[in-house]
Amino acid sequence: MADSTERTFAEPNEEIMRATHRALRNYGYADLTIKRIAEEYGKSTAAVHYYYETKDDLLVAFLDYLLGQFVDSIEDVETADPERRLELLLDELLVEPGENQDLLVAVLEMRSQTPFEEAFRERFHRNDEYIRDMLEAVIDRGIDEGVFDDVDADHVSRVLMTIVDGSHSRAVVQGETDPLSAGRRAADEFTTAVLLDDQ
Amino acid sequence: MADSTERTFAEPNEEIMRATHRALRNYGYADLTIKRIAEEYGKSTAAVHYYYETKDDLLVAFLDYLLGQFVDSIEDVETADPERRLELLLDELLVEPGENQDLLVAVLEMRSQTPFEEAFRERFHRNDEYIRDMLEAVIDRGIDEGVFDDVDADHVSRVLMTIVDGSHSRAVVQGETDPLSAGRRAADEFTTAVLLDDQ
Repeated sequence: MADSTERTFAEPNEEIMRATHRALRNYGYADLTIKRIAEEYGKSTAAVHYYYETKDDLLVAFLDYLLGQFVDSIEDVETADPERRLELLLDELLVEPGENQDLLVAVLEMRSQTPFEEAFRERFHRNDEYIRDMLEAVIDRGIDEGVFDDVDADHVSRVLMTIVDGSHSRAVVQGETDPLSAGRRAADEFTTAVLLDDQ
Repeated sequence: MADSTERTFAEPNEEIMRATHRALRNYGYADLTIKRIAEEYGKSTAAVHYYYETKDDLLVAFLDYLLGQFVDSIEDVETADPERRLELLLDELLVEPGENQDLLVAVLEMRSQTPFEEAFRERFHRNDEYIRDMLEAVIDRGIDEGVFDDVDADHVSRVLMTIVDGSHSRAVVQGETDPLSAGRRAADEFTTAVLLDDQ
């Protein structure tokens, strides 16, 4: 299915993606079926299968869709100031997800399946790399402009993603958004300590 | 089953716990059955059910067992020096787990099920609280002895657990131990920045 993967990455079926989101919210990952997604979509399972051959194909497209939404929200962040831009990226990663606790749950379930689902693993890797690249770019720009210390930007981006992934995991287990606030504060403390130490 | 829960927490059946660990390693959480655990145990399913009525009872006992193993390894840490003790706690949380990648996988699967499994959630909460209390105690002792800055020890312990949970989640998704090394380094950087800033 190389063709359809290509097509769905370029242009996911928005309505099916939104139906998948609703079905995940209502049933969770473990009880998700194409039938339930089709019900939310308001069409037949055949109509879903026309776009996505298997449930896994659909979920991989859904992971792409989530990254796409994140990228869209980031592109709205128009400031060129590295400090401000880093703040806004961290807000998108650690504050916004509090609005969609059910997505955090579904994504953690998919993350836990990566050892058994090659396609999920590949997507999580790529998405992680994409977001780390964005973080690294803004840190590098800050270093170039002399507003950040000359740090190992690759390592700092990994630490920030570790705080993000840990906060998301803890928010799921605790069933509340406090871990996101603690993570947001930790990200600030960490970046202040390593990026602004000599400033 | 309040009685047997009481009993198994106090004294888990070691052989069944080790059999559960092997079965998790071989089949993963999703394909774990009492039958497979019984095969690893070398006895009948009835022999397993004698101790644990349901698979969930057994897995809750397994989470207790894992905490017990962690506590045992911590009790071997005999130094009273707060800085050294904090280092060793972080090693137990971020270096040792690299030896048991399969356990990280199984635990992440169980964490992802907490929204649907009340008993798991309760155990993860308690275990998290227990480990945070240990971290907080060593930080408070360091503050009392004047070797650490006067920080919010509760918050610092939450940040360290966020780094731990994030590193574990990332190690599962990446299928390697690099995220544990990055997390161990991040924990050092964070504690140095916040605990030793005025020292």
